[in-house]
Amino acid sequence: MKIDVRSQKKIRTFRGKLKWSGDLDEMRRDEMTVMRNDSVTAPKGFLGAGFASGVKASGKPDLGLLVCPTGATAAAVFTTNKIVSAGVQVSREHLKSRRVYAVVVNSGNANACTGKTGLADARKMCALTAGHLGVEPGEVLVASTGIIGHHLPMEKVTRGIAQAVPLLSDSPGGGLAFGQAIMTTDTRLKQAYRELKLGRTLVKIAGTVKGAGMIGPNMATTLLFITTDVAISKSLLGKALKEAIDNSLNRLTVDGHQSTNDTALLLASGLAGNPPINGPSRPYQLFQKALTELCTDLVHQMALDAEGATRMFRVVVKGASTKADAVKAARAVADYPLFKCAVHGGDPNWGRIICAVGSSGVNLNPDKLSCKLDDLCVFRNGAPTAFDPKKAARIVSQREHTITIDLGVGKLRDFYYGCDLSAEYVRINADYHT
Amino acid sequence: MKIDVRSQKKIRTFRGKLKWSGDLDEMRRDEMTVMRNDSVTAPKGFLGAGFASGVKASGKPDLGLLVCPTGATAAAVFTTNKIVSAGVQVSREHLKSRRVYAVVVNSGNANACTGKTGLADARKMCALTAGHLGVEPGEVLVASTGIIGHHLPMEKVTRGIAQAVPLLSDSPGGGLAFGQAIMTTDTRLKQAYRELKLGRTLVKIAGTVKGAGMIGPNMATTLLFITTDVAISKSLLGKALKEAIDNSLNRLTVDGHQSTNDTALLLASGLAGNPPINGPSRPYQLFQKALTELCTDLVHQMALDAEGATRMFRVVVKGASTKADAVKAARAVADYPLFKCAVHGGDPNWGRIICAVGSSGVNLNPDKLSCKLDDLCVFRNGAPTAFDPKKAARIVSQREHTITIDLGVGKLRDFYYGCDLSAEYVRINADYHT
Repeated sequence: MKIDVRSQKKIRTFRGKLKWSGDLDEMRRDEMTVMRNDSVTAPKGFLGAGFASGVKASGKPDLGLLVCPTGATAAAVFTTNKIVSAGVQVSREHLKSRRVYAVVVNSGNANACTGKTGLADARKMCALTAGHLGVEPGEVLVASTGIIGHHLPMEKVTRGIAQAVPLLSDSPGGGLAFGQAIMTTDTRLKQAYRELKLGRTLVKIAGTVKGAGMIGPNMATTLLFITTDVAISKSLLGKALKEAIDNSLNRLTVDGHQSTNDTALLLASGLAGNPPINGPSRPYQLFQKALTELCTDLVHQMALDAEGATRMFRVVVKGASTKADAVKAARAVADYPLFKCAVHGGDPNWGRIICAVGSSGVNLNPDKLSCKLDDLCVFRNGAPTAFDPKKAARIVSQREHTITIDLGVGKLRDFYYGCDLSAEYVRINADYHT
Repeated sequence: MKIDVRSQKKIRTFRGKLKWSGDLDEMRRDEMTVMRNDSVTAPKGFLGAGFASGVKASGKPDLGLLVCPTGATAAAVFTTNKIVSAGVQVSREHLKSRRVYAVVVNSGNANACTGKTGLADARKMCALTAGHLGVEPGEVLVASTGIIGHHLPMEKVTRGIAQAVPLLSDSPGGGLAFGQAIMTTDTRLKQAYRELKLGRTLVKIAGTVKGAGMIGPNMATTLLFITTDVAISKSLLGKALKEAIDNSLNRLTVDGHQSTNDTALLLASGLAGNPPINGPSRPYQLFQKALTELCTDLVHQMALDAEGATRMFRVVVKGASTKADAVKAARAVADYPLFKCAVHGGDPNWGRIICAVGSSGVNLNPDKLSCKLDDLCVFRNGAPTAFDPKKAARIVSQREHTITIDLGVGKLRDFYYGCDLSAEYVRINADYHT
């Protein structure tokens, strides 16, 4: 089946035939219980689909398509790992296109460290998708996630793309199917939705993210896809995405490393009807704020779905002489395996917090150093306080808590999110065989 | 009982009364099976003792004394953590003394983050020990290891020191008792012994180390005590220790952090009879080499006794443009939880190695990047090879294996040791309650 995505009529006709490739009963239940569309197909102008092409041996969905028939303005943030997947290399090129019509994603295979064959495979994924939709290969972005160092089974991928196209839908089911197709060790679908009013115009933003391990700055190991119908210039869209990621995904560490494949894409269809945002105006600020909120919502979902995680926490470092020091100290705590184990055990082992801060090498005053668990001060001016250990244990045993550290040398602050480290994390990652 | 350590006669008299505070049967077996003295009392001029003072609730030995009655030349390397224990602060001061007569150590309590009270307690430990031995408090060093942020139970420590003094012995039992008293989560006593000939003179070096978790550069979480009878100047002793630590303990990471208490002490009694080493001569080089070998031996023992560890590995990075890059990349792999989990599972997941190297930010050529597991090349010039996965799994499942990564941009190399990450590590550190 060939569809010209530039023809709205054909797309509408096509929509009538939509069906779901997965568990039909499950999907119907999902669609019935969803009060409104929270998925990436919620903003005007987007279709989603997912299909089980067989890349994953489990038979779970592994091929996703996200399509904007009118063409979207696109922005992206990629991994800063020096070894990047073929998908990242190709998408970086294709982002130079004025409009992006589709994103094709596979899970179960990262197509990273796969040399020239891998690069050709990523290009082929774009070309195949473009061919089905009647657009140029350069107008399609591509992302992959899964095991590193194995060539993609291109027969399966080719067939999968062909079979996913007829499933494209702007229904919640289409968005959910796309979200499910990008999952790997995630135990649940993670999506978030925000709306905002720009004057009288309702603007919608929706995002779905995968990522449960290999999560560390800069940027969680992540494929993040955000759709919006806001009308906005390409440069401001990029600026808004960068700001949102910096304050959300780039503040989460699960195991301190970023993968070869990390990709955050933001597609704006421009169909909401707002006067296009072309400068750092009030509408830009409102949009940016909603976007950051949406990304922060997803970060919470990621932390709590991190491999084996049962709890998350926020480390706030204040009293720092530089912002960089505040980030560094906060990350040192959030990344510290011994502290993460203590949180898993519900143990208020603040000594490990102080140890991590001291080990991070930031400027601090040992005689002014203080630490709070939520609002309970456990360490003040370099000495332990007489706090109630039962209260401290209750705080650390919550689903989320905040650690606040005062370095005692300045006025700057920053933060980091982290999660506990459990035996389950080890099990997942030791049993995952190549 | 008061002993003047400067009087050899009294010490000899005193030695006749030695007895062991722990399990006598166990100790007798140990002494019988030990063919020669491998403990810190092996070099001429050292006495050791250990005692269960009650700092540890378990009733295990927790107070150690190491004494050099003739006075030793001393050198030390301390943690670079900005928050240091009271013991580290006091020992740094006391190292300025010309001679050191004793080291007093407690385990079960780190005396770190304990403010002015903690500092006074550390000074008191030196003063008490000095009082018993008839030396100055400034001629005694002190170290502590255990939980952070709790005040030392000084009544127990005071009584413990008094009761350990009469147990001082130059027998293997004395050295073993000292080694056992410094252990925390270590599952076995770790000690190493080397001897070398300088001309016709036999020189002995022995070391004992504690450390199983909280091990990361720069310097393993470690209390390391090395004794030697070599005659050497203080400045060269310090230089030799620094070089040895840089190439051994500072190349081991268990969980990437250094503690508030890390201390490596090297005491030289000078009683071997060699012409004193006063310059970077051949004898210095021989001594330095033997010292590095001894520390490397201890590093292997530490890695294999790391909390929950079942395997260790060595990451060699070559083809780097700077030595710093080689260290950074090697450490990134050795520290990477996902890779450590894969090693635990015996899985040759080389993708995680490449991911960690790329994530480390070092200068590399993606098209020249290569990786070997022992002598099996799994990744060459940026693409996977057709290696035998069973052979790769056998290599990774060994007790020790070597990963060699070629960055393809230069001629420099360095290395790092690491160990696997197991569910047991989490259990130990989540169940360890404050």
